Amino acid sequence: MTKFNYNDIDKAYNLINSYVIKTPLVTSDYINKIADAKIYFKLENFQLTGSFKFRGATHKISKLTNLEKNNGIIAYSSGNHAQAVAYASMQRNINVKIVMPVSAPKIKINNTKKYGAKIIFYDPSKETREQIGEDIALKENRKLIKPYDDYDIIAGQGTAAKEIVDDLNRYKVIPDLYVCCCGGGGLTAGTTTYIKSKYSEISTFCVEPEGFDDTKKSLESGERKRNSDDSYSICDSLLAPEPGELTFEINKLLLDGGITVTDLEVKNTIVFLAEHLKIICEPGGAVAAAAIINKKIDIKNKNVVVMISGGNIDADTFKTLI
Amino acid sequence: MTKFNYNDIDKAYNLINSYVIKTPLVTSDYINKIADAKIYFKLENFQLTGSFKFRGATHKISKLTNLEKNNGIIAYSSGNHAQAVAYASMQRNINVKIVMPVSAPKIKINNTKKYGAKIIFYDPSKETREQIGEDIALKENRKLIKPYDDYDIIAGQGTAAKEIVDDLNRYKVIPDLYVCCCGGGGLTAGTTTYIKSKYSEISTFCVEPEGFDDTKKSLESGERKRNSDDSYSICDSLLAPEPGELTFEINKLLLDGGITVTDLEVKNTIVFLAEHLKIICEPGGAVAAAAIINKKIDIKNKNVVVMISGGNIDADTFKTLI
Repeated sequence: MTKFNYNDIDKAYNLINSYVIKTPLVTSDYINKIADAKIYFKLENFQLTGSFKFRGATHKISKLTNLEKNNGIIAYSSGNHAQAVAYASMQRNINVKIVMPVSAPKIKINNTKKYGAKIIFYDPSKETREQIGEDIALKENRKLIKPYDDYDIIAGQGTAAKEIVDDLNRYKVIPDLYVCCCGGGGLTAGTTTYIKSKYSEISTFCVEPEGFDDTKKSLESGERKRNSDDSYSICDSLLAPEPGELTFEINKLLLDGGITVTDLEVKNTIVFLAEHLKIICEPGGAVAAAAIINKKIDIKNKNVVVMISGGNIDADTFKTLI
Repeated sequence: MTKFNYNDIDKAYNLINSYVIKTPLVTSDYINKIADAKIYFKLENFQLTGSFKFRGATHKISKLTNLEKNNGIIAYSSGNHAQAVAYASMQRNINVKIVMPVSAPKIKINNTKKYGAKIIFYDPSKETREQIGEDIALKENRKLIKPYDDYDIIAGQGTAAKEIVDDLNRYKVIPDLYVCCCGGGGLTAGTTTYIKSKYSEISTFCVEPEGFDDTKKSLESGERKRNSDDSYSICDSLLAPEPGELTFEINKLLLDGGITVTDLEVKNTIVFLAEHLKIICEPGGAVAAAAIINKKIDIKNKNVVVMISGGNIDADTFKTLI
């Protein structure tokens, strides 16, 4: 059993507080009316680099030694962790290489380049990014910054929940339910740790795209399960092959269950959120909202916190949707 | 000279703090790079009812006597004040009538109805809303909630700046410049009062659409000037005929000048903000950003705070733009 707890997240927040955007927790009368619930959306699409990933990357990198910083960094990522690591490295003049799939959205590739990272592309149908990343780390003596399976990363992502709790206190609201998107499980593990430490009665669920419900299946069986290799989803930020070791250790203790949503539900939710919440979010960032709007669990008369995790969608893709 | 000051705004914030959304102050690396400045956007499009107007309306209505609440409310508004007054009244079961132009955006009319207000439409080319509002107030013994020329309203709008200052403190940033949209001048007066009380060296500018630059002209001449009756702009929330008496009294003391932007600049800015800030904002909400993006004043190497005041744009209008 892990000793990781909310104290690690409070400490992380003290370290990164002045570097991150305090993102808002917003509610919409219209959405509340049709949902028959009070829904609070945490808008991490407004975080620096367009997703919550900047919290974990900034936290991890701020704890590196000077020697590690001088030797440089390597990371692998579908795109949001890539941008976050590249940006946090640029701020500190650290040399950084990122392993990214050739299929990553243009916006994520372009931003990662813009932040000064060297990108090593790989073909996800033939190669594994973990292997490429570890090889380069060893060969070039670079520090590998994992996307989720690291307590410093999990604590950093958890700081989003510290802000959620602060805002709920201001609104004098006790939440009944917390719903969070889940790829490798870092955001889910960090935020759920913090939220459950403050609201012991809350129910918490992770949400995954159909075909990538490895955490849901792992929760049901009690052990880590892999996704089928031939799965496909538009939710490019949630395609981790299986739950992380450390993240699953936390999530299996804290989560009440997993929910899946289809790509069509996600597309409709992106349009719905643009119209009624006035935000532009990416597919992976919209899955928790999709679960709630499609009432995949009972939310009637409940206070529900929904994570919107990122906004990095190609402009052309967004235009096609609406 | 007015005695209105930042204390009134701190008091207002204490009253309304738990009713309003604490909206974020966000920055974008991409925008900062092309602007050659550090720009912080205050996103009041995420306020309840979709604009900052909810701050002032909630503050004013929370200070009414029980008798006034029982007798009901009347307000006139192009749409954002209408929604704000209707929503704050609905929360307190107060009967409310709103005088609105027939030309108001559908989203604003529909929301105002949805919040339970009775709408009295008027033709802005033939009638004046102030007269209709005052007539109904007198005849039906209703309390008139003015959109800007009222110290309680100004103090309420000013609370947005209290949050701006809190976030700038967290980011350890001293702003050089504050740029705010301006219709009747309530938001400008309230927020500038607060910001100048904290940063005595800051420069502050109001931004208006071409043809509705009454505050700019009034600042230049030292007395209140009216807009020409045949002006037109897509910025429906900024079409007040002249500066308010109370708001101009404050603004002429505090503002360093006025800036105008064209409708085309505003349209391009809405698209730009959707692409790079991932937000959907309304024309009137985008004018301050339009002034900055089009470099209407010198911002090089400065820390600039830009108000985005609202997001109530018809979905069809937004689709046409992008």
